[in-house]
Amino acid sequence: MTYCAALNLEAGMVFASDTRTNAGVDHVSCFRKMRTYTTANHDRFLVLLSAGNLATTQSVASLIERGIAHDEQHLLNRPTLYDAALMVGELLRDVQRRDAGSTGVSQGVDLGATLLLGGKIRGERPRLFNIYAQGNFIESSPETPFFQIGESKYGRPILDRVVRHDTDLARASKCVLISFDSTIRSNLSVGLPVDLLVLPHDQDTPSVQVRIHKDDPYFQQISRSWSEGLHRVFSDLPNSDWM
Amino acid sequence: MTYCAALNLEAGMVFASDTRTNAGVDHVSCFRKMRTYTTANHDRFLVLLSAGNLATTQSVASLIERGIAHDEQHLLNRPTLYDAALMVGELLRDVQRRDAGSTGVSQGVDLGATLLLGGKIRGERPRLFNIYAQGNFIESSPETPFFQIGESKYGRPILDRVVRHDTDLARASKCVLISFDSTIRSNLSVGLPVDLLVLPHDQDTPSVQVRIHKDDPYFQQISRSWSEGLHRVFSDLPNSDWM
Repeated sequence: MTYCAALNLEAGMVFASDTRTNAGVDHVSCFRKMRTYTTANHDRFLVLLSAGNLATTQSVASLIERGIAHDEQHLLNRPTLYDAALMVGELLRDVQRRDAGSTGVSQGVDLGATLLLGGKIRGERPRLFNIYAQGNFIESSPETPFFQIGESKYGRPILDRVVRHDTDLARASKCVLISFDSTIRSNLSVGLPVDLLVLPHDQDTPSVQVRIHKDDPYFQQISRSWSEGLHRVFSDLPNSDWM
Repeated sequence: MTYCAALNLEAGMVFASDTRTNAGVDHVSCFRKMRTYTTANHDRFLVLLSAGNLATTQSVASLIERGIAHDEQHLLNRPTLYDAALMVGELLRDVQRRDAGSTGVSQGVDLGATLLLGGKIRGERPRLFNIYAQGNFIESSPETPFFQIGESKYGRPILDRVVRHDTDLARASKCVLISFDSTIRSNLSVGLPVDLLVLPHDQDTPSVQVRIHKDDPYFQQISRSWSEGLHRVFSDLPNSDWM
């Protein structure tokens, strides 16, 4: 499985993804699920996060790269981010159709994948899209400033509590890491390292682009502080009369 | 949807269930998902929690009641809790087979349901079973002292952090309520009131059996304290060098 989250806030965007994939429990591997695309003069910076069938998402990424290499109609020369999302959605449909076709049937395997595509093109506001397996997509808004894909439920409560459109980037990044910590604790199929990228709206390139490994001292510190803090708050909750 | 949790701990058992059911988003109703069964002399006390297709779970419950009323082979005269789980699993299979058969097909509707059956029969240790839609089941253990059914992921992290086999019943009950609070905040399909039952191992009958409504002052208090505490702990987390 996989867990990815992306936030489009007033001050900028935060992207994060884990790196664990599994086909059954006895075939667990480490794959990057965050891909970035930019032009030489950084007039556009795009981030793609992927969850779902690995063959499908890798094929979509390869086709994006091939397009850019051959300088055809590609991800980095679409007029708007909407057009970029449209293109990625079409590629996603094409790959699933192709792979289902080649074997006649998909043999019970789900070829589906979901993608988060966000970033900015100079002259346009920063935008974030959640692209479904069907190739259609929705866009984030100030009221719903974040999307999650993959194993999203364990890490959702803390995002629901903390993240608003006007949350600053440091606080939002921390919240995303805590969301990953909760998910990793409760679900074996999501694992470190985690890729984290922060793209402030007033910069052309990321202010943060790090891979957080198991032995990362900062992640260990907030993971421990959070756990201790939760236990403290929990222990301070009053008992009821009927207890 | 539904959320139910049951814990079998060193000191006793805790059961909780919400009361919201929905068939689509425009057909939301309130149904009890916790049922209790006991004998006149309280030599056995059983609790059944249900999630999944409401027609299936209500039919299973009706068949259990009919069995008890007719004093045939029924839930309250099985020699062991294992036999009781076996009987409920068979009823669950029977109902699904019957309802799928009467329409020829189930018309795309999932008739499945999952059940938690726990409690005690005098002379036997307290036991807790998680009964799958297939009618087979697993039993809790000191290493895995709790089960959840229904919309379980949002409320799982706090249970994972707090509940151990030797957790006392007051602490465990509070943790279950916080787990419900997290789920209710993140998922509309789970809602108050919540039924809570605590069955200490050294008593024949529940020490707590309450229905917690939306305006319950205790639930409001711990929900607010928990939320404020989380925000406090979160705000105290340090920033990283790269922030």
